[in-house]
Amino acid sequence: MVTLKDIAAEAGVSITTVSNVVHNRKSRVSPELVAKIWKIIEREHYVPSMSARSLANDQSCIIGVITHLTPQNTGSTVGDPFLSSFVDSIEKQTRDEGYYLMIRAVEEAKELSALSRSWRLSGLILTGMFQDDFFRTTKELGIPYVLIDSYVDDPDACCVGLEDEKGGYIATKHLLENGHRVIAFASPSVRPGGVIEKRLIGYRRALAEYGISYDPSLVFTQEISVEEGKQLGRLLAAKKEITGIFASADILAAGIMAGLSESDVSVPQDKSVVGFDDLYLSQLTIPGLTTIHQDAGQKGILATEMLLKQLRREPIAEKNIILPVHLVKRGSVQPPKR
Amino acid sequence: MVTLKDIAAEAGVSITTVSNVVHNRKSRVSPELVAKIWKIIEREHYVPSMSARSLANDQSCIIGVITHLTPQNTGSTVGDPFLSSFVDSIEKQTRDEGYYLMIRAVEEAKELSALSRSWRLSGLILTGMFQDDFFRTTKELGIPYVLIDSYVDDPDACCVGLEDEKGGYIATKHLLENGHRVIAFASPSVRPGGVIEKRLIGYRRALAEYGISYDPSLVFTQEISVEEGKQLGRLLAAKKEITGIFASADILAAGIMAGLSESDVSVPQDKSVVGFDDLYLSQLTIPGLTTIHQDAGQKGILATEMLLKQLRREPIAEKNIILPVHLVKRGSVQPPKR
Repeated sequence: MVTLKDIAAEAGVSITTVSNVVHNRKSRVSPELVAKIWKIIEREHYVPSMSARSLANDQSCIIGVITHLTPQNTGSTVGDPFLSSFVDSIEKQTRDEGYYLMIRAVEEAKELSALSRSWRLSGLILTGMFQDDFFRTTKELGIPYVLIDSYVDDPDACCVGLEDEKGGYIATKHLLENGHRVIAFASPSVRPGGVIEKRLIGYRRALAEYGISYDPSLVFTQEISVEEGKQLGRLLAAKKEITGIFASADILAAGIMAGLSESDVSVPQDKSVVGFDDLYLSQLTIPGLTTIHQDAGQKGILATEMLLKQLRREPIAEKNIILPVHLVKRGSVQPPKR
Repeated sequence: MVTLKDIAAEAGVSITTVSNVVHNRKSRVSPELVAKIWKIIEREHYVPSMSARSLANDQSCIIGVITHLTPQNTGSTVGDPFLSSFVDSIEKQTRDEGYYLMIRAVEEAKELSALSRSWRLSGLILTGMFQDDFFRTTKELGIPYVLIDSYVDDPDACCVGLEDEKGGYIATKHLLENGHRVIAFASPSVRPGGVIEKRLIGYRRALAEYGISYDPSLVFTQEISVEEGKQLGRLLAAKKEITGIFASADILAAGIMAGLSESDVSVPQDKSVVGFDDLYLSQLTIPGLTTIHQDAGQKGILATEMLLKQLRREPIAEKNIILPVHLVKRGSVQPPKR
């Protein structure tokens, strides 16, 4: 059996250098040396055993990216356009430091615990909404972790989130400033402690500033899909009193605009619409969608940086990173007709 | 140390049953038994060691989902909207059979080989374009594998692909039938053996049927993004002789439409556009985008089924699955002005 030590001796380098090459930590080794070491590895038919390493080191160099399965969400949220923009940057950054990515959707906290302990995961990134028992379980595992888009009441937890409440506030305020007084809130179901609830709180704060009392019958719950958005658009088309619509996701907003258009209701002449996310599609709708900008890729980058810092035992200056939002004005808002 | 055997004895079930519960193969065990076994696992603090199992069984139950890093694609294609629709279904199906998903972007075939051997991967799914040495390497590994969207000249290889050539053909033919004679082909760079080359071959076949000779100056290469599409749209707006545009991706087509619109060129009055993919955004553009429909999620489902069949040592009736395409007519094509 050829060992790491044999390869290092043959190449005249340290074991660490060979390990860096094997695990693709390319930034630490010159391209010439990488090529030389790979040549020896191939000639000697060396195969590092991750299982043996994992048993010896008590950790696997696997980072778990965890999403939450719920009764509503029986697939997994891996296919979510947001998550895919995270996964992209998480994969790249962790790969560059010699880690491997395992993607898993879990239903219950004990599954997360079993997964992490049985694979000796080196770190965890949890994305989206989880219940409190998940946060407790994650903390008890004693390995580095970062939460994305989770609201957790724990100063020790490393989190990357967004100004969700402010986003809801400025979206609604923009409609109010344009003279709208009956404003619908369209979103997927509001779960306590989730990002949608925060956006709804922002919506309510803006209304309150204008002395408008909150009317739950103006909250329309719809799954995030173009088809469901269209249905909602057709429904809202018939409600003449509603002149402004704030949708908590661009996909939903775009669907609503299509549904309104099918019902011969014009945006922004008859109704104004504001979205959330600033996906590329908000540039494609006609008129362009006025929306709240957020940088989803950046969430993944910052979360991974925070995780890698923990893995390198470097200090973390700010454990709770909240990314800013801002309003992007396009063409979907104007004052209502008198 | 508590072992699998201890848990099985305590629960009065077989080791296989406990293993099914631990690895989440829920369909094979009743919910009551699952709950009972989890209770014992938690009480006894049992932690299965995947590393030890991997060393003992010479395989890890990890499925590698591999994308190809190229100089043009320095991130990874994990964030690609297509790949994310695959990953979603791959994760769900493999999880239900007790496998775990590792996602990795590789640059060279030897990295793939090292990854697979060092982790003792149970199977591989390769997505997108790879060079021949990747296919050779993959085959030599001797583990089950499936290729998605790869054109490989090997009857033994399990592949899931699309009628790419036919898609290019029917898109172009639709423009020709509507009276267009100068038709641009817009796509990311054409790599030999890739899906784009096949769509280009289809475009050329349709032109040839109408006695139109192929003009390379009508091929416009552009990265797939709304921004780049818009630039191309503005460029095409000035080319009066071009009345039809076939874009090999909807995102590009939508960007082109936005760029044309900015330049006061109307679709379909001044120029007609056909896309490819039938993403949800093709329903959102105004006019709706006429496009070639494909089912990306289905590619992931079928590829995973084929991989799981190999892992279960079941026979595979058809190793080369080609998914059908069809034209979806919306509003972006009409005969050119005289």
